Amino acid sequence: MIIVVRPGATKDQVQQILEKLDQCHLKAHVSEGSERLIIGVIGDKSRLAPGALELLPAVEKLVPIMESYKLASRAFRPEGTSFEIKGISVGADELTMMAGPCAVESEEQVDQVASVVSSCGARFLRGGAYKPRTTPYSFQGLEKEGLKILRRVADRYNLLVISEITSENDIDYASEYVDVIQIGARNAQNFRLLSAVGKSKIPVMLKRGIAETIDEWLGSVEYVMSEGNYKIIMCERGIRTFETSTRSTLDISAIPVLKAKTHLPVIVDPSHASGKAQYVRSLSLAAIAAGADGLIVEVHPNPMCALSDAAQQITPKDYQALSKEIASIARIINRKYPD
Amino acid sequence: MIIVVRPGATKDQVQQILEKLDQCHLKAHVSEGSERLIIGVIGDKSRLAPGALELLPAVEKLVPIMESYKLASRAFRPEGTSFEIKGISVGADELTMMAGPCAVESEEQVDQVASVVSSCGARFLRGGAYKPRTTPYSFQGLEKEGLKILRRVADRYNLLVISEITSENDIDYASEYVDVIQIGARNAQNFRLLSAVGKSKIPVMLKRGIAETIDEWLGSVEYVMSEGNYKIIMCERGIRTFETSTRSTLDISAIPVLKAKTHLPVIVDPSHASGKAQYVRSLSLAAIAAGADGLIVEVHPNPMCALSDAAQQITPKDYQALSKEIASIARIINRKYPD
Amino acid sequence: MIIVVRPGATKDQVQQILEKLDQCHLKAHVSEGSERLIIGVIGDKSRLAPGALELLPAVEKLVPIMESYKLASRAFRPEGTSFEIKGISVGADELTMMAGPCAVESEEQVDQVASVVSSCGARFLRGGAYKPRTTPYSFQGLEKEGLKILRRVADRYNLLVISEITSENDIDYASEYVDVIQIGARNAQNFRLLSAVGKSKIPVMLKRGIAETIDEWLGSVEYVMSEGNYKIIMCERGIRTFETSTRSTLDISAIPVLKAKTHLPVIVDPSHASGKAQYVRSLSLAAIAAGADGLIVEVHPNPMCALSDAAQQITPKDYQALSKEIASIARIINRKYPD
Amino acid sequence: MIIVVRPGATKDQVQQILEKLDQCHLKAHVSEGSERLIIGVIGDKSRLAPGALELLPAVEKLVPIMESYKLASRAFRPEGTSFEIKGISVGADELTMMAGPCAVESEEQVDQVASVVSSCGARFLRGGAYKPRTTPYSFQGLEKEGLKILRRVADRYNLLVISEITSENDIDYASEYVDVIQIGARNAQNFRLLSAVGKSKIPVMLKRGIAETIDEWLGSVEYVMSEGNYKIIMCERGIRTFETSTRSTLDISAIPVLKAKTHLPVIVDPSHASGKAQYVRSLSLAAIAAGADGLIVEVHPNPMCALSDAAQQITPKDYQALSKEIASIARIINRKYPD
Repeated sequence: MIIVVRPGATKDQVQQILEKLDQCHLKAHVSEGSERLIIGVIGDKSRLAPGALELLPAVEKLVPIMESYKLASRAFRPEGTSFEIKGISVGADELTMMAGPCAVESEEQVDQVASVVSSCGARFLRGGAYKPRTTPYSFQGLEKEGLKILRRVADRYNLLVISEITSENDIDYASEYVDVIQIGARNAQNFRLLSAVGKSKIPVMLKRGIAETIDEWLGSVEYVMSEGNYKIIMCERGIRTFETSTRSTLDISAIPVLKAKTHLPVIVDPSHASGKAQYVRSLSLAAIAAGADGLIVEVHPNPMCALSDAAQQITPKDYQALSKEIASIARIINRKYPD
Repeated sequence: MIIVVRPGATKDQVQQILEKLDQCHLKAHVSEGSERLIIGVIGDKSRLAPGALELLPAVEKLVPIMESYKLASRAFRPEGTSFEIKGISVGADELTMMAGPCAVESEEQVDQVASVVSSCGARFLRGGAYKPRTTPYSFQGLEKEGLKILRRVADRYNLLVISEITSENDIDYASEYVDVIQIGARNAQNFRLLSAVGKSKIPVMLKRGIAETIDEWLGSVEYVMSEGNYKIIMCERGIRTFETSTRSTLDISAIPVLKAKTHLPVIVDPSHASGKAQYVRSLSLAAIAAGADGLIVEVHPNPMCALSDAAQQITPKDYQALSKEIASIARIINRKYPD
Repeated sequence: MIIVVRPGATKDQVQQILEKLDQCHLKAHVSEGSERLIIGVIGDKSRLAPGALELLPAVEKLVPIMESYKLASRAFRPEGTSFEIKGISVGADELTMMAGPCAVESEEQVDQVASVVSSCGARFLRGGAYKPRTTPYSFQGLEKEGLKILRRVADRYNLLVISEITSENDIDYASEYVDVIQIGARNAQNFRLLSAVGKSKIPVMLKRGIAETIDEWLGSVEYVMSEGNYKIIMCERGIRTFETSTRSTLDISAIPVLKAKTHLPVIVDPSHASGKAQYVRSLSLAAIAAGADGLIVEVHPNPMCALSDAAQQITPKDYQALSKEIASIARIINRKYPD
Repeated sequence: MIIVVRPGATKDQVQQILEKLDQCHLKAHVSEGSERLIIGVIGDKSRLAPGALELLPAVEKLVPIMESYKLASRAFRPEGTSFEIKGISVGADELTMMAGPCAVESEEQVDQVASVVSSCGARFLRGGAYKPRTTPYSFQGLEKEGLKILRRVADRYNLLVISEITSENDIDYASEYVDVIQIGARNAQNFRLLSAVGKSKIPVMLKRGIAETIDEWLGSVEYVMSEGNYKIIMCERGIRTFETSTRSTLDISAIPVLKAKTHLPVIVDPSHASGKAQYVRSLSLAAIAAGADGLIVEVHPNPMCALSDAAQQITPKDYQALSKEIASIARIINRKYPD
């Protein structure tokens, strides 16, 4: 950390900074610039309360040098992370394709989707059982019954199950049925849930919060990793901006930025990002071309009759067509598309 | 809801819309504009899956007419809501002043603050016991012990206690010690927590999510109200924007907007909004002048030694000075400042 | 346009709305919903001052049905627009590749770039002569001399010239040297400049304003088109959001959204969007995969010595490698890459 | 400026940085931290191209220490700036009240407003003659005739005139009729216009761009000041955010932030910020309470018949009531309200 000293600060005021640092067992490294006095701070900064130095009259500003995340940082594993979930590898050469309906509505509905997507590359079956809805009057999901349906159908087609939970109290139950727990955008900074999922050691997909910076998102990842759970997939699903022609704005740049900042696999959710089925194809191709490790796509046998987010779900037929194009792009950028 | 029909849609395609509405027992009201065909939809729209109509080829766009919240709407109680908590009224003429340290650190620390703020208008003692921090390596709060300290000190000075909880599992415990449960910005759309707090019937202060629109925030309020808990205080604490000279951007307009949209009391948190003690005075005066029903201000006996958010906490002495100015502004806009 | 009437409005208040419409020679179409009274408005709405109806006590809200742009709308030319500039077609099957340095610094510098990029698909040479810089103390461009250099070098390699102008007073001069005038993000709503460029009839590339919605951007396009200039290229270059790890956030979704809303060609500027050379490749591939009609990329023979925006310029060698990957992606999505 | 060196950088790579600095005649100050090597850079950084250092492999990030504006900085005039325009002082104890219609429509209309606002504290008459409208099909203003009307009416009531111009070509003409030139939000980074206004030496009010950070805004101010024009009023008029219940989000915190960062007077435009007359009172009181040096308020004799922005204009009667409340608040915060 670097302290920039206010011009005109008195010697006594500068001394006050040095004493404060000394109290906290931090070393100071003073250097006289042409326009400002600069103090480099060396040692364990966690001894300083966040914000404490800013209150000293001589402090113009503080400049952090280090990120606040460690385990999530690229430096921790420069070669990148890949891991296996029941024999399916994530983060390696092969793209990770996840597909399924927004919400689990019935075994028949899920089966219709699974039979198609499993035949064209998807290895994970998604489906919402606990649905966080912006109004209490909307369909809230089949909950436990939904998880059971997902498991039965997934087993039928040799798929793994990913599903969202919204409370630490559901982890034990969910872990009997799902292979990857999803933490949704609205719980992206629900640190209690993150810690609990960290302790559980179940693989987790952590969506970006709707207004979370990439650094804050890596801070959320750190909550899970610091509990010893390293099987984490990051999922970019769009951020909130002023633009309203899509539900969120897919931050496509987050893909190369994350590749530079962290070692973890990154996948993209084009369905929630756009909120509109007609844009899913473009965003999917873009995500893979930009270097994403996979996609999670909402597919419904009959979107018009869906009980939630109908407008953003594509048909199994569209998914088939999309998977062919993705496979072609994968080849160009030296990724494998699952057979 | 109104359906705008795409120009060039065929009769069959329009018929398809009408049939879909009929299936859902909704009445259609077709009207020919100069440039577009418009279909008004009458009846209970919850029968339609969100997004389903958008998928029909003839639908250009849907226009909602009604908000998705009902109990939170101004129309539900046009005269406004005020309620009492242990004899202290909120939302009435008298401003509601809440103050206390960011985090509870020790009984002595809390006492030093409480002794001052209780003598200049504060009726609620705030203090964080469960701290949601962006990194797992920061001070996480004294938890249960923190709540006990708050209670003891509050009783000593005849104050009520408000404190944040971050999990539905803490409600029972917390409700033994606190008078108002605070739901923080990061849990603003943690619907499980909102429902649980709704069932508990304890008064709740619901902060705005960092990127929550006012309508979404009222949707969060609806989650609490729909469980039968009507004692809700809304707390504007700044939203995320591109501007970085303050931590968040206080949405001062939210005050008159909420006064028009909802009947609930609205208070403002200038400390979290700005993140800097030096701006707390300006934002506090502005909030009261704009019509807020009160403030929640962070006060620390020695901000420089605070264990969290040091930079945004003001001293008891500053709070005294601030309270005098607020009392003067209160008079001008016909509000009472608590003696 | 649709008027939603406030619940509880009196008959007289509703009558007031109808009279106001009648005064403006607009027809009203009243329909009783289950929860609200709705008034459809038919006729030429330009007779109403924007905002006038909102002031009537019975008006809850107004809902526009039509976009405010006409010539820019997809409906105006459903088949899409392509046009030729000196024999080079834009908006057709072949991708439009533009490349060159951020700022023109010397003839040698421009030549080094042009010799490479012209040999791998670029048809347009870009280069800033008038540089809008955020501080008056930065290099402001070679101005007229810069345009002359661009022209000479472009002619040498059979390229067309695109360059930004920042004042209506420069159009005449610039049009002697450039084939396409670029309007930059900071002038995206400089309507005087837009009108003047419209009158000039020179092909124009209009960048999106840094916080311009897609609909507002189409409004800016309409300014140019309404003066009779239809040769317009739209250029997505990133929008301002809360995320700071890239300079702007490339709105990749804008590509399919624009393809639905307008008939005009759309290209992408990955250099300004990211602000960092290391991300240019990912964003370029993503843009083409998402359906963009081309790219404008900053290339400098020696980025480290550049006089402006050094960090975002790639080397001629990197451009060569990039062009091969783009050509491969083009094939998959049925676009031609220029030989 | 400080250079943070990437962990694992080789000695040669660090040497490369030092050589680059040496070439640019900059001094380097290397210091070894516990986790990173840090290089302080001393000297005139304008010799370095922006971005050049970031391209060196050993550079992790650059940290600017100084702002890019100088004349606009508080340090340049710690005591604050106030100046007189034809005997009316701006930025001193007395609040600066500006009022008038959104657009000049007729002499009668302007007179009706001026007669009232001049009698309750306004010293400046505002009115749009050149209107930047988002669509070319809207009323564009009376232009030159509008300026003449403003002048005649202003002289009648002993008011000064402020009006927006949108092109450098209008400065000479406008300066015959107006006392303060307004640069609007859409031209906030039209640097050609800013320089031209700087050269003109006419007092200027510079509105904040819709997505301009405070630091960028001060960069725009610097363009004007660096040409020798120091009579500048800054006008906060709301920024673009995700919230849509107001047209823009008034950044109330900008007031105390600007008071810390610059010496220039700051006024607030509650009319454009909110876009709705019903919120103008709250925002006006908040702005003054927060420390603004004045207000610019849109007032129309008959808002419902206004030719532009009808919804945000208040009536002369409302302005009278508002001015009384402002005068009361002014007293509390030790400002004078003009008699």
